[in-house]
Amino acid sequence: MNVAEAIKNRYSCRSYKAEPVPEEKLKRVLEAARLAPSAHNTQEWKFIVVKDAEKRKEVAEAAGQSFVAEAPVIIAAVGLNPDDVLSSGIPDYIVNLAVAVDHMTLQATEEGLGTCWIGAFSQEKVKKVLAIPEDYKLTFLMPLGFPAGNGKGRPKIRKSLEEIISYDKF
Amino acid sequence: MNVAEAIKNRYSCRSYKAEPVPEEKLKRVLEAARLAPSAHNTQEWKFIVVKDAEKRKEVAEAAGQSFVAEAPVIIAAVGLNPDDVLSSGIPDYIVNLAVAVDHMTLQATEEGLGTCWIGAFSQEKVKKVLAIPEDYKLTFLMPLGFPAGNGKGRPKIRKSLEEIISYDKF
Repeated sequence: MNVAEAIKNRYSCRSYKAEPVPEEKLKRVLEAARLAPSAHNTQEWKFIVVKDAEKRKEVAEAAGQSFVAEAPVIIAAVGLNPDDVLSSGIPDYIVNLAVAVDHMTLQATEEGLGTCWIGAFSQEKVKKVLAIPEDYKLTFLMPLGFPAGNGKGRPKIRKSLEEIISYDKF
Repeated sequence: MNVAEAIKNRYSCRSYKAEPVPEEKLKRVLEAARLAPSAHNTQEWKFIVVKDAEKRKEVAEAAGQSFVAEAPVIIAAVGLNPDDVLSSGIPDYIVNLAVAVDHMTLQATEEGLGTCWIGAFSQEKVKKVLAIPEDYKLTFLMPLGFPAGNGKGRPKIRKSLEEIISYDKF
């Protein structure tokens, strides 16, 4: 699957089969995160692969979205340098983790797996469930598994290029 | 080029040919941003395509990195909702724009084009050059063009999977 197709086909998958994710597919998804660029190549990140059913349930509860527990794998993306800020005023860790997780969503699409960006959750509760140290920041949760449906999302609703592009100035 | 290859081949390109970016390639790169997911699908973003040579020079100066002006195109990614924050405490716009720009870097790789994430710049100066309204936030600059060298980066230096992955807890 080429990049353009993966970008078109990726969607927020909210229903998963219980079927486990084959190890070689999981490894390629994690490799996509590992190879992601990070500001100054610090790689100040950790990815927790949650397979334990009880923990998945607790994580889903802390995110207030029960479907998350359906997926046989949840990946929790943790930033280890939440205090670093680029000269533009943007904190590094959010960018680094967003890029790494984006790589995983596209690689998962290539593998025939579904994912969903979960950015809404109780930081405090999930950190407790996964024993994430106080100083680190959980940035995203990403359920991963075979889609229960037809593996296709609804047609994407997006603004036109004309609405979002300008030339040489805002 | 499949997703795994694009992720492997993408690198921070710091030298560009003056040769213009063909319109159909530029369009596919912008389309990759347009199709990116955003929190609640708000798409609160704008992408400024800077081709004007004088403006590119001014942008590069404000980023303190002259090579940026070499690229025939610089894309400035602007967040229109910098005050929105997810329940996890993470500002939406940074995530949204990071994902959109990441899509562009991978699509550009597929097109044989080079890119570089530029997160270090004077917010104030670039906003002035590109007439970006005060309330919005410039998140990234991305030069885009044909690589001047062999189109390959140095071998990636990355932590091992063992170093960055844990299972079921941190």
